[in-house]
Amino acid sequence: VLSADVIQKLKNIVGDDGIFDRTEDLLAPAAEVEDAGPQVDVRVSPKTADEVARVLAVASEHGVPVVPRGSGTGPSGSSAAREGDIVLSTARMNRILSISAEDLIAVVQPGVEMEEFRRTVEEAGLFYPPDASSERPSTIGGSVGESTSGLRALKYGGTRKYVMGMKIALPTGERIQTGARTLKCVTGYDLARLFIGSLGTLGVCTEVYLKLLPLPETRVVTVAIFDRARDAAEASMRILDRGIVPSALEMMDRTTLQALLRTGDQPFPEDAGTLLLIETDGLPGAAGRQAVEAGEICHSSGARDVRKAQTSHAAEAFWNARRSALAALCRARPATVMEEVRVPRSRVADLVGSLMALVEIEAAGMALLGHVGEGRLHPTIPVHLSDPSDVSRVRRIVGKISQEVLSLGGRFGPERGVGLGDVSFLDERPSAEGMDLVKRLKDAFDPKGIMNPGARL
Amino acid sequence: VLSADVIQKLKNIVGDDGIFDRTEDLLAPAAEVEDAGPQVDVRVSPKTADEVARVLAVASEHGVPVVPRGSGTGPSGSSAAREGDIVLSTARMNRILSISAEDLIAVVQPGVEMEEFRRTVEEAGLFYPPDASSERPSTIGGSVGESTSGLRALKYGGTRKYVMGMKIALPTGERIQTGARTLKCVTGYDLARLFIGSLGTLGVCTEVYLKLLPLPETRVVTVAIFDRARDAAEASMRILDRGIVPSALEMMDRTTLQALLRTGDQPFPEDAGTLLLIETDGLPGAAGRQAVEAGEICHSSGARDVRKAQTSHAAEAFWNARRSALAALCRARPATVMEEVRVPRSRVADLVGSLMALVEIEAAGMALLGHVGEGRLHPTIPVHLSDPSDVSRVRRIVGKISQEVLSLGGRFGPERGVGLGDVSFLDERPSAEGMDLVKRLKDAFDPKGIMNPGARL
Repeated sequence: VLSADVIQKLKNIVGDDGIFDRTEDLLAPAAEVEDAGPQVDVRVSPKTADEVARVLAVASEHGVPVVPRGSGTGPSGSSAAREGDIVLSTARMNRILSISAEDLIAVVQPGVEMEEFRRTVEEAGLFYPPDASSERPSTIGGSVGESTSGLRALKYGGTRKYVMGMKIALPTGERIQTGARTLKCVTGYDLARLFIGSLGTLGVCTEVYLKLLPLPETRVVTVAIFDRARDAAEASMRILDRGIVPSALEMMDRTTLQALLRTGDQPFPEDAGTLLLIETDGLPGAAGRQAVEAGEICHSSGARDVRKAQTSHAAEAFWNARRSALAALCRARPATVMEEVRVPRSRVADLVGSLMALVEIEAAGMALLGHVGEGRLHPTIPVHLSDPSDVSRVRRIVGKISQEVLSLGGRFGPERGVGLGDVSFLDERPSAEGMDLVKRLKDAFDPKGIMNPGARL
Repeated sequence: VLSADVIQKLKNIVGDDGIFDRTEDLLAPAAEVEDAGPQVDVRVSPKTADEVARVLAVASEHGVPVVPRGSGTGPSGSSAAREGDIVLSTARMNRILSISAEDLIAVVQPGVEMEEFRRTVEEAGLFYPPDASSERPSTIGGSVGESTSGLRALKYGGTRKYVMGMKIALPTGERIQTGARTLKCVTGYDLARLFIGSLGTLGVCTEVYLKLLPLPETRVVTVAIFDRARDAAEASMRILDRGIVPSALEMMDRTTLQALLRTGDQPFPEDAGTLLLIETDGLPGAAGRQAVEAGEICHSSGARDVRKAQTSHAAEAFWNARRSALAALCRARPATVMEEVRVPRSRVADLVGSLMALVEIEAAGMALLGHVGEGRLHPTIPVHLSDPSDVSRVRRIVGKISQEVLSLGGRFGPERGVGLGDVSFLDERPSAEGMDLVKRLKDAFDPKGIMNPGARL
């Protein structure tokens, strides 16, 4: 528990209205994934970079762990705090400071919500490709810490590609700036990159420079319905082999679609097997032609039905379904384990085939969805956490998935630190040398070790 | 000077044919830029990652500086060694280990030459966008250390976007792997990114995983000739404003063109003022339409002549001119100072206008060329190094350029450590806090401080 002395010092920095210690504010994120247990901690909401730096300095002085938190919805669970921690919320640093259509740059505070940011830049005729793959709120700062990608990463890449620079408050209380607003923007070590995916273990970004793109003139969404998930994966590989790079290429299997149908009306038929969502974008002619070609490939790969979303409203209904998919799966179940697996592009159909075989044999209830175009999929498995035999069943299934992924030359685990998740199935735990280096690196930023000590990298 | 003991240890690692100590092998790179003086050192050419690690361990043990070197042509001069240094050459680690068209990944050793790599991947129908902007040989390892971009960075980005992972030998003798061969590939801190642009100050990459793209179906090169450089810059801004993203958009001014003409036949007329080279690529229809539109914009911006290169041979002649431009400028002069300036896209025409005014007033002989589409230009100035008054004249001009760039919201200096160059005009020297952090970071990788201690970051 934090001492009254520390709490008073924090109050002096952020003011009485910048500090909360009500337990109910501090429920763990990602509550579907695992129950992080009761938490008693203090949440501090600074308004300026200077306040952030001073909060960190106080925490360093007293050796108190600090857990940075945006909307607290990150799948790694790394914004969950423990008793006695300071949760540093970016909720009051939520302004879009500037958007330049001429220079294709936005400057934002970390607490800006992704969806608000997307709307604002689109109104200016601009495009920030990383978006949220789920319907849960998320912030720019969170997307940086978790290195998210969103649904359009296949063509446009993820957060890493768009962060041009940052202002950072270090746990030592120092403040630095790295990168800049020009296109090629790094002098010296690329410190901003190091922050992306660092799960708040190095410091707190207080301002982020984001690269924007012109908004594509058209987006064409094609929906293909397959009976077999493997055929959908095969089609997605053939689309890419043809040299078409869709802006999004997403798959949802039957179990996922059934879970969505249980939550309300959906834009797809009730007996759909697997859905492939294909978005092509750019100049109207080219995007349209690529959509037609992709549709033909789906047909010849065994799609039962292929159609173009006729309106942007119709297209949005499919993306909403995709964004709601995880929540729908979670709602239907006692608890859900969501994994992330990645295989080289050429092995995606093999992976989907063997995971579907696993569903038949012993993984009943497992759903498969994700970024099939990138070779990146999320198997999600329902689990009764209170039943030890069910937990060990799920662990066994996860182990088999991991084996399968490794045998296909892929990797098990997300592109970021693993957060509070289970590391026992990680294929490639860093070598002892690698871990030594990571530790030395962490010490360079955070000599007192106060930044999110619970997060595993 | 290295002790016989150390030299013997190095010989035991790399063999007699892996070590050289002839002075003539060790001439400084970037000799046009500045004369780095006589050098006496030892060059070691390991053949395997294990040999690299062992060489570094010996150097650490004896506290001997190590300067990694690819082809030694980097503009930062950071591969220049000092007396008593070990030059670690990657010349014998020059194999392309694999190229996968299915997975769009290549695995290469650091000593592979960029041009050989480009040819090899293109023969496989693939595309590695970062290329060399000059005709001088360069290696993959060098492009990583210097964070190069090449001529197509406007659309495709530079080296940072394509390095997916690395194997690295640390100065401690440790060996680590970071990143992987799948598309989203970082677990934990993004250490590979930190190496990009680090000028060999952190360690030596011994294997690099590079992302490839499908080779675009068409490339259309449009050449526009302007009387005034400012009009060419204006046209380039208007092309981008129209939502066209050319794969390359390069400018060469009259002084550059005249220098090229003095070296032999050129594909442009002798009285050309400024050349704008515009390459659009992709599907034939779209690339052609964008080329036509870009050409129209050039016409309405005051181009005297706009034409399409009718054959790939004709197009190549223009790119060869562009790649030879710096060498041509250097050849014509006693010595040449090349700077790099970057301004926000919307200020490019203003920058070009004011630099051209500077040429009129006091910077006679200054040439301007570069990546106008990115807002990144290279003013190059002839200088007589033996004449102190000429040197101070050039320093004064560089100071004015720097002021101009800063007043336009831009940055002075390259996107990498500044190497051995002059830092006195850097606009944004890191803060004291920033420098402290950089030092702690460097210590984490290189506790003995042996890696390229001469390079400034």
